Amino acid sequence: MTTKIHETGIDVDPQVPLVRITRDFDAPPEQVFRAHTDPDLLARWNGPRSLQMRIDHYDCRTGGSYRYRHIRGNDEFGFHGSFHEVRPNELIVQTFTFEGEPDGVALERMVFEDLGGGRTRLTGTSLVDSFEARDAMLASGMDEGIRDSYDRLEELLAG
Amino acid sequence: MTTKIHETGIDVDPQVPLVRITRDFDAPPEQVFRAHTDPDLLARWNGPRSLQMRIDHYDCRTGGSYRYRHIRGNDEFGFHGSFHEVRPNELIVQTFTFEGEPDGVALERMVFEDLGGGRTRLTGTSLVDSFEARDAMLASGMDEGIRDSYDRLEELLAG
Repeated sequence: MTTKIHETGIDVDPQVPLVRITRDFDAPPEQVFRAHTDPDLLARWNGPRSLQMRIDHYDCRTGGSYRYRHIRGNDEFGFHGSFHEVRPNELIVQTFTFEGEPDGVALERMVFEDLGGGRTRLTGTSLVDSFEARDAMLASGMDEGIRDSYDRLEELLAG
Repeated sequence: MTTKIHETGIDVDPQVPLVRITRDFDAPPEQVFRAHTDPDLLARWNGPRSLQMRIDHYDCRTGGSYRYRHIRGNDEFGFHGSFHEVRPNELIVQTFTFEGEPDGVALERMVFEDLGGGRTRLTGTSLVDSFEARDAMLASGMDEGIRDSYDRLEELLAG
Protein backbone atom coordinates (compact mmCIF):
# COMPACT_ATOMS: atom_id res chain seq x y z
CA MET A 1 0.00 0.00 0.00
CA THR A 2 1.30 3.44 -0.86
CA THR A 3 1.14 6.43 1.47
CA LYS A 4 -1.66 8.72 0.40
CA ILE A 5 -0.83 12.21 -0.75
CA HIS A 6 -4.15 14.04 -0.35
CA GLU A 7 -6.97 13.94 2.20
CA THR A 8 -10.69 13.64 1.48
CA GLY A 9 -12.91 16.36 2.93
CA ILE A 10 -16.45 15.37 3.91
CA ASP A 11 -18.68 18.19 5.14
CA VAL A 12 -22.38 18.64 5.77
CA ASP A 13 -24.11 21.76 4.56
CA PRO A 14 -25.64 23.82 7.40
CA GLN A 15 -28.72 24.88 5.37
CA VAL A 16 -29.78 21.95 3.20
CA PRO A 17 -29.57 18.13 3.49
CA LEU A 18 -26.45 17.83 1.40
CA VAL A 19 -23.03 16.25 1.93
CA ARG A 20 -20.03 17.81 0.16
CA ILE A 21 -16.95 15.75 -0.62
CA THR A 22 -13.70 17.22 -1.92
CA ARG A 23 -10.47 15.56 -2.99
CA ASP A 24 -7.51 16.71 -5.02
CA PHE A 25 -5.71 14.36 -7.39
CA ASP A 26 -2.28 14.70 -8.98
CA ALA A 27 -3.67 13.84 -12.41
CA PRO A 28 -5.36 15.91 -15.12
CA PRO A 29 -9.19 16.13 -15.34
CA GLU A 30 -9.24 13.80 -18.36
CA GLN A 31 -7.74 10.97 -16.31
CA VAL A 32 -9.87 11.53 -13.21
CA PHE A 33 -12.99 11.76 -15.37
CA ARG A 34 -12.13 8.61 -17.32
CA ALA A 35 -11.72 6.69 -14.05
CA HIS A 36 -15.40 7.56 -13.39
CA THR A 37 -16.80 6.72 -16.83
CA ASP A 38 -14.86 3.59 -17.85
CA PRO A 39 -16.41 0.67 -15.94
CA ASP A 40 -13.18 -1.37 -16.04
CA LEU A 41 -11.32 1.46 -14.32
CA LEU A 42 -14.20 2.22 -11.95
CA ALA A 43 -14.22 -1.36 -10.66
CA ARG A 44 -10.57 -0.93 -9.62
CA TRP A 45 -11.21 1.87 -7.12
CA ASN A 46 -14.92 2.30 -6.29
CA GLY A 47 -15.94 1.11 -2.84
CA PRO A 48 -14.18 -0.01 0.32
CA ARG A 49 -11.01 -2.11 -0.07
CA SER A 50 -12.65 -5.06 1.67
CA LEU A 51 -15.33 -5.49 -1.06
CA GLN A 52 -15.26 -6.57 -4.69
CA MET A 53 -17.21 -4.54 -7.25
CA ARG A 54 -19.35 -6.28 -9.89
CA ILE A 55 -20.85 -4.05 -12.56
CA ASP A 56 -24.16 -5.20 -14.07
CA HIS A 57 -24.35 -2.28 -16.47
CA TYR A 58 -22.72 1.13 -16.51
CA ASP A 59 -23.64 3.43 -19.37
CA CYS A 60 -22.06 6.71 -18.26
CA ARG A 61 -23.52 9.21 -20.74
CA THR A 62 -26.32 11.79 -20.54
CA GLY A 63 -29.53 9.72 -20.31
CA GLY A 64 -27.73 6.48 -19.45
CA SER A 65 -28.03 4.37 -16.30
CA TYR A 66 -26.07 1.99 -14.11
CA ARG A 67 -26.29 -0.86 -11.65
CA TYR A 68 -23.45 -2.42 -9.68
CA ARG A 69 -22.90 -4.50 -6.55
CA HIS A 70 -20.28 -4.48 -3.83
CA ILE A 71 -19.63 -8.05 -2.69
CA ARG A 72 -17.92 -9.63 0.31
CA GLY A 73 -18.40 -13.41 0.60
CA ASN A 74 -22.15 -14.01 0.55
CA ASP A 75 -23.01 -10.38 1.27
CA GLU A 76 -24.11 -8.24 -1.65
CA PHE A 77 -24.92 -4.52 -1.66
CA GLY A 78 -26.65 -3.27 -4.81
CA PHE A 79 -26.70 0.29 -6.13
CA HIS A 80 -28.40 1.81 -9.17
CA GLY A 81 -29.22 5.12 -10.75
CA SER A 82 -29.45 7.19 -13.89
CA PHE A 83 -27.07 9.70 -15.47
CA HIS A 84 -28.84 13.05 -15.80
CA GLU A 85 -25.87 14.73 -17.46
CA VAL A 86 -22.34 13.76 -18.37
CA ARG A 87 -20.12 16.63 -19.65
CA PRO A 88 -16.72 15.21 -20.64
CA ASN A 89 -13.93 16.12 -18.21
CA GLU A 90 -16.18 18.59 -16.37
CA LEU A 91 -19.32 17.25 -14.77
CA ILE A 92 -21.38 14.18 -13.90
CA VAL A 93 -24.91 14.57 -12.48
CA GLN A 94 -26.52 11.29 -11.49
CA THR A 95 -29.07 9.71 -9.18
CA PHE A 96 -28.08 7.09 -6.61
CA THR A 97 -30.04 4.50 -4.66
CA PHE A 98 -28.67 1.93 -2.23
CA GLU A 99 -30.98 -1.01 -2.79
CA GLY A 100 -31.02 -1.86 0.92
CA GLU A 101 -33.20 1.24 1.22
CA PRO A 102 -35.06 1.16 -2.11
CA ASP A 103 -37.22 4.25 -1.50
CA GLY A 104 -34.22 6.45 -0.80
CA VAL A 105 -32.57 8.40 -3.57
CA ALA A 106 -29.79 10.97 -3.72
CA LEU A 107 -29.03 13.51 -6.43
CA GLU A 108 -25.28 13.53 -6.92
CA ARG A 109 -23.16 16.11 -8.72
CA MET A 110 -19.44 15.66 -9.39
CA VAL A 111 -17.43 18.63 -10.65
CA PHE A 112 -13.95 18.05 -12.13
CA GLU A 113 -11.97 21.27 -11.73
CA ASP A 114 -8.68 21.75 -13.57
CA LEU A 115 -6.16 23.11 -11.04
CA GLY A 116 -3.42 23.32 -13.68
CA GLY A 117 -0.10 21.49 -13.62
CA GLY A 118 -1.79 18.14 -14.14
CA ARG A 119 -3.88 18.39 -11.01
CA THR A 120 -7.66 18.11 -10.49
CA ARG A 121 -10.04 19.02 -7.70
CA LEU A 122 -13.06 16.74 -7.52
CA THR A 123 -16.04 18.22 -5.64
CA GLY A 124 -19.00 15.92 -5.14
CA THR A 125 -22.34 16.78 -3.58
CA SER A 126 -25.02 14.36 -2.52
CA LEU A 127 -28.48 15.85 -1.92
CA VAL A 128 -31.36 14.05 -0.20
CA ASP A 129 -34.83 15.20 0.82
CA SER A 130 -34.46 15.31 4.63
CA PHE A 131 -31.83 15.83 7.32
CA GLU A 132 -32.78 12.42 8.75
CA ALA A 133 -31.93 10.80 5.40
CA ARG A 134 -28.64 12.71 5.31
CA ASP A 135 -27.71 11.54 8.80
CA ALA A 136 -28.69 7.95 7.97
CA MET A 137 -26.49 8.15 4.85
CA LEU A 138 -23.51 9.28 6.95
CA ALA A 139 -24.23 6.69 9.68
CA SER A 140 -24.23 3.93 7.02
CA GLY A 141 -20.44 4.15 6.69
CA MET A 142 -20.62 6.25 3.52
CA ASP A 143 -17.68 8.39 4.73
CA GLU A 144 -15.37 5.41 5.22
CA GLY A 145 -16.37 3.99 1.82
CA ILE A 146 -15.64 7.30 0.14
CA ARG A 147 -12.26 7.81 1.84
CA ASP A 148 -11.23 4.27 0.91
CA SER A 149 -12.44 4.78 -2.67
CA TYR A 150 -10.54 8.01 -3.23
CA ASP A 151 -7.35 6.64 -1.66
CA ARG A 152 -7.64 3.72 -4.10
CA LEU A 153 -8.29 6.13 -6.98
CA GLU A 154 -5.17 8.11 -6.06
CA GLU A 155 -3.16 4.89 -6.18
CA LEU A 156 -4.69 3.90 -9.53
CA LEU A 157 -3.90 7.30 -11.05
CA ALA A 158 -0.33 7.14 -9.72
CA GLY A 159 0.08 3.61 -11.11
CA MET B 1 -63.62 24.57 -21.30
CA THR B 2 -64.98 22.50 -18.45
CA THR B 3 -65.21 23.67 -14.85
CA LYS B 4 -62.47 22.07 -12.82
CA ILE B 5 -63.42 19.71 -10.02
CA HIS B 6 -60.27 19.65 -7.87
CA GLU B 7 -57.68 22.23 -6.84
CA THR B 8 -53.90 21.88 -7.04
CA GLY B 9 -51.98 22.41 -3.82
CA ILE B 10 -48.49 23.89 -4.09
CA ASP B 11 -46.55 24.18 -0.83
CA VAL B 12 -42.96 24.85 0.12
CA ASP B 13 -41.33 22.72 2.78
CA PRO B 14 -40.16 24.74 5.82
CA GLN B 15 -37.00 22.64 6.38
CA VAL B 16 -35.59 21.72 2.98
CA PRO B 17 -35.57 23.32 -0.51
CA LEU B 18 -38.48 21.28 -1.78
CA VAL B 19 -41.83 22.12 -3.37
CA ARG B 20 -44.75 19.73 -2.78
CA ILE B 21 -47.62 19.55 -5.26
CA THR B 22 -50.83 17.64 -4.61
CA ARG B 23 -53.85 17.02 -6.82
CA ASP B 24 -56.70 14.53 -6.69
CA PHE B 25 -58.14 13.04 -9.87
CA ASP B 26 -61.44 11.22 -10.40
CA ALA B 27 -59.70 8.42 -12.28
CA PRO B 28 -57.90 5.26 -11.13
CA PRO B 29 -54.10 5.19 -10.67
CA GLU B 30 -53.63 3.18 -13.88
CA GLN B 31 -55.14 6.01 -15.96
CA VAL B 32 -53.32 8.84 -14.17
CA PHE B 33 -50.04 6.93 -14.42
CA ARG B 34 -50.53 6.15 -18.12
CA ALA B 35 -51.12 9.86 -18.82
CA HIS B 36 -47.57 10.38 -17.46
CA THR B 37 -45.82 7.54 -19.31
CA ASP B 38 -47.48 7.59 -22.75
CA PRO B 39 -45.92 10.49 -24.69
CA ASP B 40 -49.00 10.91 -26.92
CA LEU B 41 -51.18 11.42 -23.85
CA LEU B 42 -48.56 13.54 -22.06
CA ALA B 43 -48.44 16.00 -24.96
CA ARG B 44 -52.18 16.61 -24.53
CA TRP B 45 -51.94 18.01 -20.99
CA ASN B 46 -48.35 18.85 -19.97
CA GLY B 47 -47.56 22.56 -19.81
CA PRO B 48 -49.53 25.79 -19.92
CA ARG B 49 -52.52 25.95 -22.30
CA SER B 50 -50.86 28.71 -24.32
CA LEU B 51 -47.94 26.49 -25.41
CA GLN B 52 -47.59 23.47 -27.67
CA MET B 53 -45.57 20.50 -26.49
CA ARG B 54 -43.10 18.75 -28.84
CA ILE B 55 -41.53 15.57 -27.56
CA ASP B 56 -38.03 14.77 -28.86
CA HIS B 57 -37.80 11.51 -26.94
CA TYR B 58 -39.63 10.19 -23.90
CA ASP B 59 -38.61 6.75 -22.67
CA CYS B 60 -40.46 6.55 -19.35
CA ARG B 61 -38.94 3.45 -17.73
CA THR B 62 -36.33 2.91 -15.02
CA GLY B 63 -33.05 4.03 -16.59
CA GLY B 64 -34.72 5.87 -19.48
CA SER B 65 -34.56 9.56 -20.34
CA TYR B 66 -36.56 12.33 -21.98
CA ARG B 67 -36.40 15.65 -23.77
CA TYR B 68 -39.28 17.86 -24.80
CA ARG B 69 -39.97 21.48 -25.72
CA HIS B 70 -42.82 23.85 -25.00
CA ILE B 71 -43.35 26.11 -27.99
CA ARG B 72 -45.22 29.38 -28.60
CA GLY B 73 -44.55 30.97 -31.97
CA ASN B 74 -40.79 31.38 -32.24
CA ASP B 75 -40.21 30.84 -28.52
CA GLU B 76 -38.99 27.42 -27.42
CA PHE B 77 -38.41 26.17 -23.88
CA GLY B 78 -36.48 22.90 -23.65
CA PHE B 79 -36.53 20.42 -20.76
CA HIS B 80 -34.68 17.16 -20.24
CA GLY B 81 -33.91 14.58 -17.62
CA SER B 82 -33.54 10.91 -16.75
CA PHE B 83 -35.92 8.42 -15.15
CA HIS B 84 -34.32 7.04 -11.99
CA GLU B 85 -37.24 4.71 -11.23
CA VAL B 86 -40.62 3.98 -12.78
CA ARG B 87 -42.87 1.65 -10.74
CA PRO B 88 -46.09 1.00 -12.69
CA ASN B 89 -49.13 2.79 -11.24
CA GLU B 90 -47.20 3.79 -8.12
CA LEU B 91 -44.12 5.95 -8.53
CA ILE B 92 -41.97 7.96 -10.93
CA VAL B 93 -38.61 9.36 -9.77
CA GLN B 94 -36.90 11.55 -12.35
CA THR B 95 -34.48 14.40 -12.81
CA PHE B 96 -35.53 17.67 -14.45
CA THR B 97 -33.59 20.51 -16.04
CA PHE B 98 -35.02 23.61 -17.71
CA GLU B 99 -32.50 24.27 -20.46
CA GLY B 100 -32.74 28.03 -19.96
CA GLU B 101 -30.78 27.36 -16.78
CA PRO B 102 -28.63 24.39 -17.84
CA ASP B 103 -26.72 24.00 -14.56
CA GLY B 104 -29.89 23.70 -12.50
CA VAL B 105 -31.40 20.32 -11.79
CA ALA B 106 -34.32 19.11 -9.67
CA LEU B 107 -34.98 15.64 -8.31
CA GLU B 108 -38.67 14.95 -8.78
CA ARG B 109 -40.77 12.24 -7.18
CA MET B 110 -44.39 11.54 -8.16
CA VAL B 111 -46.45 9.19 -5.99
CA PHE B 112 -49.74 7.80 -7.35
CA GLU B 113 -51.95 6.94 -4.38
CA ASP B 114 -55.09 4.85 -4.85
CA LEU B 115 -57.90 6.60 -2.93
CA GLY B 116 -60.40 3.88 -3.88
CA GLY B 117 -63.60 4.40 -5.84
CA GLY B 118 -61.68 5.17 -9.02
CA ARG B 119 -59.85 8.14 -7.51
CA THR B 120 -56.16 8.94 -7.27
CA ARG B 121 -54.08 11.38 -5.25
CA LEU B 122 -50.96 12.52 -7.04
CA THR B 123 -48.24 13.94 -4.78
CA GLY B 124 -45.21 15.40 -6.48
CA THR B 125 -42.08 16.75 -4.85
CA SER B 126 -39.36 18.76 -6.50
CA LEU B 127 -36.06 19.00 -4.61
CA VAL B 128 -33.24 21.42 -5.44
CA ASP B 129 -29.96 22.18 -3.71
CA SER B 130 -30.65 25.67 -2.31
CA PHE B 131 -33.53 27.84 -1.13
CA GLU B 132 -32.49 30.41 -3.75
CA ALA B 133 -32.96 27.81 -6.50
CA ARG B 134 -36.35 26.85 -5.03
CA ASP B 135 -37.49 30.48 -5.00
CA ALA B 136 -36.23 31.00 -8.56
CA MET B 137 -38.17 27.91 -9.63
CA LEU B 138 -41.37 29.30 -8.12
CA ALA B 139 -40.73 32.78 -9.54
CA SER B 140 -40.35 31.28 -13.03
CA GLY B 141 -44.09 30.67 -13.26
CA MET B 142 -43.77 26.99 -12.38
CA ASP B 143 -46.93 27.19 -10.22
CA GLU B 144 -49.07 28.55 -13.03
CA GLY B 145 -47.72 25.94 -15.44
CA ILE B 146 -48.51 23.14 -13.00
CA ARG B 147 -52.03 24.36 -12.23
CA ASP B 148 -52.77 24.67 -15.95
CA SER B 149 -51.28 21.22 -16.61
CA TYR B 150 -53.32 19.44 -13.94
CA ASP B 151 -56.54 21.19 -14.96
CA ARG B 152 -55.87 19.96 -18.51
CA LEU B 153 -55.09 16.46 -17.20
CA GLU B 154 -58.41 16.44 -15.30
CA GLU B 155 -60.21 17.34 -18.52
CA LEU B 156 -58.33 14.66 -20.47
CA LEU B 157 -59.18 11.98 -17.89
CA ALA B 158 -62.85 13.07 -17.89
CA GLY B 159 -62.89 12.98 -21.71
